[in-house]
Amino acid sequence: MIDFPYLSELVQKSDSKILMLVVDGLGGAPQRQSRRSELEAARVPNLDRLAQESACGLSTPVLPGIAPGSGPGHLGLFGYEPLKYLIGRGALEAIGIEMELLPGDVAARGNFATVDAQGNLTDRRAGRISSELAAPLAEKLNKITVPGVEIAVKHVKDYRFVLRLRGEGLSEEITETDPQRLGVPPLQVEPHVRDIPGVDAQGNGHSREARTLAARKTANAVNAFAAQAAEVLKNDAPANQMLLRGWSELPQLPGFGPSYQLNPAAIAAYPMYRGLARIIGMKVIPTGTDFAAEVATLKEHWAEHDYFYLHYKPADAAGEDGDFEKKKRALEALDAFIPALLDMKPDVLVICGDHATPSIYAAHSWHPVPVLLRSQWTLGEGVDRFNERSMRNGSLGTFEAKYIMLQALSHAGKLAKFGP
Amino acid sequence: MIDFPYLSELVQKSDSKILMLVVDGLGGAPQRQSRRSELEAARVPNLDRLAQESACGLSTPVLPGIAPGSGPGHLGLFGYEPLKYLIGRGALEAIGIEMELLPGDVAARGNFATVDAQGNLTDRRAGRISSELAAPLAEKLNKITVPGVEIAVKHVKDYRFVLRLRGEGLSEEITETDPQRLGVPPLQVEPHVRDIPGVDAQGNGHSREARTLAARKTANAVNAFAAQAAEVLKNDAPANQMLLRGWSELPQLPGFGPSYQLNPAAIAAYPMYRGLARIIGMKVIPTGTDFAAEVATLKEHWAEHDYFYLHYKPADAAGEDGDFEKKKRALEALDAFIPALLDMKPDVLVICGDHATPSIYAAHSWHPVPVLLRSQWTLGEGVDRFNERSMRNGSLGTFEAKYIMLQALSHAGKLAKFGP
Repeated sequence: MIDFPYLSELVQKSDSKILMLVVDGLGGAPQRQSRRSELEAARVPNLDRLAQESACGLSTPVLPGIAPGSGPGHLGLFGYEPLKYLIGRGALEAIGIEMELLPGDVAARGNFATVDAQGNLTDRRAGRISSELAAPLAEKLNKITVPGVEIAVKHVKDYRFVLRLRGEGLSEEITETDPQRLGVPPLQVEPHVRDIPGVDAQGNGHSREARTLAARKTANAVNAFAAQAAEVLKNDAPANQMLLRGWSELPQLPGFGPSYQLNPAAIAAYPMYRGLARIIGMKVIPTGTDFAAEVATLKEHWAEHDYFYLHYKPADAAGEDGDFEKKKRALEALDAFIPALLDMKPDVLVICGDHATPSIYAAHSWHPVPVLLRSQWTLGEGVDRFNERSMRNGSLGTFEAKYIMLQALSHAGKLAKFGP
Repeated sequence: MIDFPYLSELVQKSDSKILMLVVDGLGGAPQRQSRRSELEAARVPNLDRLAQESACGLSTPVLPGIAPGSGPGHLGLFGYEPLKYLIGRGALEAIGIEMELLPGDVAARGNFATVDAQGNLTDRRAGRISSELAAPLAEKLNKITVPGVEIAVKHVKDYRFVLRLRGEGLSEEITETDPQRLGVPPLQVEPHVRDIPGVDAQGNGHSREARTLAARKTANAVNAFAAQAAEVLKNDAPANQMLLRGWSELPQLPGFGPSYQLNPAAIAAYPMYRGLARIIGMKVIPTGTDFAAEVATLKEHWAEHDYFYLHYKPADAAGEDGDFEKKKRALEALDAFIPALLDMKPDVLVICGDHATPSIYAAHSWHPVPVLLRSQWTLGEGVDRFNERSMRNGSLGTFEAKYIMLQALSHAGKLAKFGP
């Protein structure tokens, strides 16, 4: 968890309930013409009213200036030191689609891709082919066999799939086949054993030799798989090739529930966020495919848990598309759900984001993210609008996201005084 | 560098250019009468306009409440954890005047001083004698010999010089001769071996015994030198004595260029800042003696580098003098150069300071320092003035200076997303 060694001595149970609404890609940045951010341009009266009754601030997801992926962005919100606890992309994807991942397994995120007659990449996402087209291709890849290693391929969504390797002595310390650019063929995989300070010298974990051996074995297996995959797919243009990246094993993270003495549940329509919650031991409640379904699920299960992680995806998706108006509308759509959330009477309501996705930047960015926290102990502090400019004048100031859970626990009466 | 272990995996080259203008002693504090700081009193329309288009905040050089020297102040701005990477004053001065300093050499900053007939100090800076008077005196000291140690003395500026000791088994772990007060004689030098956690226990580096031995040898050599120096100078009043402090060896720091994948250059009229840049491997471009010369040098070499450290000294000098009006004028003089800097079209412009030097305090202080960062991703955020009071309401909040480089790299497209 965070660098607060007395957490386990201070957490305490209480009857109160915490609802943490994570608005993916919540933060934005001003557009050149209007000089207003998406939140400033949006009509969000319910969020504005909440800002007027809450403790407000901006959160830094990882460090000032660092644009985080969804993994570190969420782990910070859950109070895990994001520089210490890392989740690989492959592991995250695998768990998100409920593909079993055991200790020692190695998973990669796969993309279907397009190559030309010379085998050079022309589209790293195969024209973003639909799930209908991609799922049978993943089934074909799933039939590939490689001696000494068990192969499993499972379709995720659109052009994406997961490859899982299972067997003795495998390693995530290998390079990727995705060259991250066009006009060149996919790369051969090589061992890439990192220097982990102290590991060799102090004899923790495996020796460098053992790790190199495992990486070599894994790289050979992947190269054998990739050669067959290219053959299997060659007549399936635009998906006539595939790319693999984000090699990772199952990370070992402290449990969210035991660490905070909470009985946590996660409600998320998108697989990756369910996977994330599952990795830290939250109960993942099945739900539908949009936020309305999530809110209905929340209402149905409200009595059963004392902490809910509720995920809202559309703001990030619109920001990634670079679509200012769409992101604005996504935030307005969220605003309409706020009364339903308040109806459940959470003792502590946290509204936060895992990172900013300004539509002018069309990607995850490093900007601080609005955060508010409403409880019986908040009555507002002069912040009148729910946006980047107003919220930064709140009492929380600009602070690291990993401290949000401590704030939430204290407001919920779940964290005792530190020291006599 | 800073505690961000994934830096090397995330830095990436791009065509963009970063210009970091370090305004020495930038920060100030309100004067009693006007209740305005130097920046608030100054007419700085160009800086104000920049604040209106930038990401703004205040930087904490080291820790809240810590007044830093120029070494840690600058190292923080360059992204070096200032509590981990220390540069001694002697080493900094030596390198600033291009006096060769090899591993194992020990250097000290020397002052010419005045003593009375009893040998008690009456002026620790010998009336700030001119370079014309001081340089020949340094030459006299340079002729002193001490058995077993090679002595070199080189004049710096005004009343200041560097003493360098070279030989086997020397150490920086000795006390200073400067008593830092008047009415007493200079001090004898003694070994001062510090407790460095873990060094003895794990056998890293030298044992405490070896370090004590080296310190004793060095102290003896320095005392022998000091005795001869007092004799050599006795008829040269006001410079009839000298003081030594800031014993230091050459520090080993990670290279700035390789760490950030930058091709960095430094432009500074004052030797110490050139020395600092040289220690971290920046190319130091020869320039003139004032900021106008620096800006001309910058323009001339603009095409050759993707990062420039440009140093502005007069604000600190005026603050150290306790001269509010002079510091105000120094800031106004800087403001007039801003259009010339913008003409070069830096992709990322950072204006920051290594520490505050409020003229009411007449010394480096612990106050947070204004910082702004302007790029294609900034359009302003409601901050309308470039000063301490306005800038703290910017989106960057108050944050540690060591993160400024991460911000600059992200704005420049030189830092990839962290984690999936």
